[in-house]
Amino acid sequence: MASVKPPRGMRDFLPADKARRERVLAVIRERYRAHGFDEIETPVMEEHGRLHAGIGGDNEKLAYNILKRGLDAEAIRAAAEDPAQLTDLGLRYDLTVPLARFYATHRGVLPTVFRAIQIAPVWRAERPQKGRYRQFVQCDIDIIGDASDRAEAELVVATLDTLDALGLEGGIVRINDRRALDFMLDTFGFPVDERPGVLITIDKLDKIGPEGVVAELAERGAAPEAVEAFRAFLMRPQTLEFHPYGERQIRKALPEGAPDDIVAHLAGIGEAVAAARPSTGSGATSSGATSSEATSAEAGGVPLVFDPFLVRGMGYYTGTIFELAHPSVDYSLGGGGRYDGMIGRFLGQEVPAVGFSIGFERIVDLVAEQEQDAAASIVLVHDADVPVAELLALKGALMADGARVRLERRTKNLKALLERASADGYTSFATVSTGTARDDLELKTLA
Amino acid sequence: MASVKPPRGMRDFLPADKARRERVLAVIRERYRAHGFDEIETPVMEEHGRLHAGIGGDNEKLAYNILKRGLDAEAIRAAAEDPAQLTDLGLRYDLTVPLARFYATHRGVLPTVFRAIQIAPVWRAERPQKGRYRQFVQCDIDIIGDASDRAEAELVVATLDTLDALGLEGGIVRINDRRALDFMLDTFGFPVDERPGVLITIDKLDKIGPEGVVAELAERGAAPEAVEAFRAFLMRPQTLEFHPYGERQIRKALPEGAPDDIVAHLAGIGEAVAAARPSTGSGATSSGATSSEATSAEAGGVPLVFDPFLVRGMGYYTGTIFELAHPSVDYSLGGGGRYDGMIGRFLGQEVPAVGFSIGFERIVDLVAEQEQDAAASIVLVHDADVPVAELLALKGALMADGARVRLERRTKNLKALLERASADGYTSFATVSTGTARDDLELKTLA
Repeated sequence: MASVKPPRGMRDFLPADKARRERVLAVIRERYRAHGFDEIETPVMEEHGRLHAGIGGDNEKLAYNILKRGLDAEAIRAAAEDPAQLTDLGLRYDLTVPLARFYATHRGVLPTVFRAIQIAPVWRAERPQKGRYRQFVQCDIDIIGDASDRAEAELVVATLDTLDALGLEGGIVRINDRRALDFMLDTFGFPVDERPGVLITIDKLDKIGPEGVVAELAERGAAPEAVEAFRAFLMRPQTLEFHPYGERQIRKALPEGAPDDIVAHLAGIGEAVAAARPSTGSGATSSGATSSEATSAEAGGVPLVFDPFLVRGMGYYTGTIFELAHPSVDYSLGGGGRYDGMIGRFLGQEVPAVGFSIGFERIVDLVAEQEQDAAASIVLVHDADVPVAELLALKGALMADGARVRLERRTKNLKALLERASADGYTSFATVSTGTARDDLELKTLA
Repeated sequence: MASVKPPRGMRDFLPADKARRERVLAVIRERYRAHGFDEIETPVMEEHGRLHAGIGGDNEKLAYNILKRGLDAEAIRAAAEDPAQLTDLGLRYDLTVPLARFYATHRGVLPTVFRAIQIAPVWRAERPQKGRYRQFVQCDIDIIGDASDRAEAELVVATLDTLDALGLEGGIVRINDRRALDFMLDTFGFPVDERPGVLITIDKLDKIGPEGVVAELAERGAAPEAVEAFRAFLMRPQTLEFHPYGERQIRKALPEGAPDDIVAHLAGIGEAVAAARPSTGSGATSSGATSSEATSAEAGGVPLVFDPFLVRGMGYYTGTIFELAHPSVDYSLGGGGRYDGMIGRFLGQEVPAVGFSIGFERIVDLVAEQEQDAAASIVLVHDADVPVAELLALKGALMADGARVRLERRTKNLKALLERASADGYTSFATVSTGTARDDLELKTLA
């Protein structure tokens, strides 16, 4: 057999994988809908100019571009120095640019506060590596048109609820606010032009620890007094994560004098999440919490952790940022934040917006193996000479009782055939010869 | 507002449309799965060479091509006379080429008889026109590895059953066999090189009638004796469609001496469909049947019509061909056929295959408007100053009882707000002030 494969970095999904993906998607859709979100869909392509308007950050460079149709030799030569002339459309690299375009197109017929679900593939021409694909599904919820902490609270609750529904209880959301980061860098005296670099280093705190961060800031040549002030703050005798989550704790985690509106916004999200998930007892006990801290149970089990050093890479965030963690894995399962400046880009006016994206490809790997279908799944193993009318009558009769039915012509190796069917999710089988009636069928359980 | 639109010929789906599409897809998936088919997924892109290997017919010309990444000026200039050098990948224009590639890739781990479901978008750079889009969903089932009439029967029954489940009872499948067409053209004496043109004309029988077909064949310069023999056959005193569907009727509809194997294959499909759908009483009464013909009820209501003049455009069919009709519309809702030569193309050996594609975009338009969700859908209209924790606690309590809940901040025009919510599928509402408890909520029905 010649080697025939899907394009590099892209995947086929065989029946078992595809069934699991669709099952997970159905749960996600149902939960998000119950939370008052509405699914929309946009074409996979957008105009080239929109995909390269600066909203997409580094992902813009990874876009697949569509070759213009009907180019002649002259047009191609003319594009030699400017390849952008060869393309008019591109495949989306995220769901946020299309959402901004969609909102600009349809704003007049959308609710004032629009809660969007988008579940769809995106494409990035990245170097393929383990766990990173050139086509993958993103799964976003966004609330457009609400600047209040209601929006963040609804997103967090919907996300954790969906994780629960997938059997992944115990999710924890780390939360911070870009404005709190700005306030912190102000306080320590980092000059404005140093801040992007400083944030890149702070973002490594999980990996390289406080000493590593301080060392890297010094290497960067950041203002020495600022680095020293930051060092003193980082090293003060206090855990890096805080329970119970509340206004007092948030203030304690920040340098003194944090602006009231930022603290109130963050605290409000925590109160709302606690109120919406009163029964949640798991998930809020962070490894960083010392035993002298109030336990999460005392705080009503808020599955939120305020992390004043959470940065999130994308440059477009303007307020709250969050990241989704789960005790079973040491990588993030999703994240998001507020990006008030962006949705309105194609509209020419600012519109408040906040989104939460769960990492579908990671989550689908964590979800338990497929349970058997609720309905009976039956293989009818038939002799080669059974009239097709008899076979389909039997199949129809079993289906009328709610079964899933696969026909298999008997082969010499019946054992292999049945093992195969069992691996495909079938739970019982019966053999069929010419003249076998419905009442003659003896269903046997598959191993 | 600036004019911002999706790319030409492509559509956004707003919440109501998207919900309906997903609902229809869920029914299709469930039914096809029950019939023993398994869904697979392939990447939207395939290698350029595979998309242009001659399998795709006229659609190959309509493919969107992906611009190679990292082309420099020299490479672009070198491609001026051969634009194919600018591209390495393309978007699929159908689901059959990807299925052939998928089967070649994974054959070793697939069942001997593989029943595939593919539900996915395809792209064609066609001139946009009413009802024809550049991105649209195709919905195919295929059976690979079974040359018997079981395969056709399973496809037809699964398709009609799915149509029933969507509330579109009464579907009728027109059926023919390419080999029967060949036999007919042989019998009348059309030279082999004239046949493709002759078939194109015969394909217009529905539109231009027997006289029109004969006139056009003459215009084409087809062999006069053959045209005359065909004319005599077409004009003989007999209906063009036949009930009950059976071997005798199929023979009657063809010139004398039709090969036994073809007739038996066609008749076998009919018997099997009748056996699988014993209760079907509707749909088989064709407008072409005269009152002297046996009625469909007498024949057990087989929803099949043998149409010896059915052609189907694609050149790759090798045997049975079918087309799906429904009494509510005068256009086809799908079709398919046997294409034994094609699936094995990338494998280098012949593999029997037959497929049935339903026209998802047409069907979704016919399915009744969205029923209300089974669960209660509640809008909570709240004053601006209600604490977010109270709002989310109320929302959570209603959701715990299975409701779908949307929060709406009260606006001056409450009536407009409620009409909007009703249009979005919400069925009741309650107003919330600070301090409103769950037990205080008065649910009122939305108009």
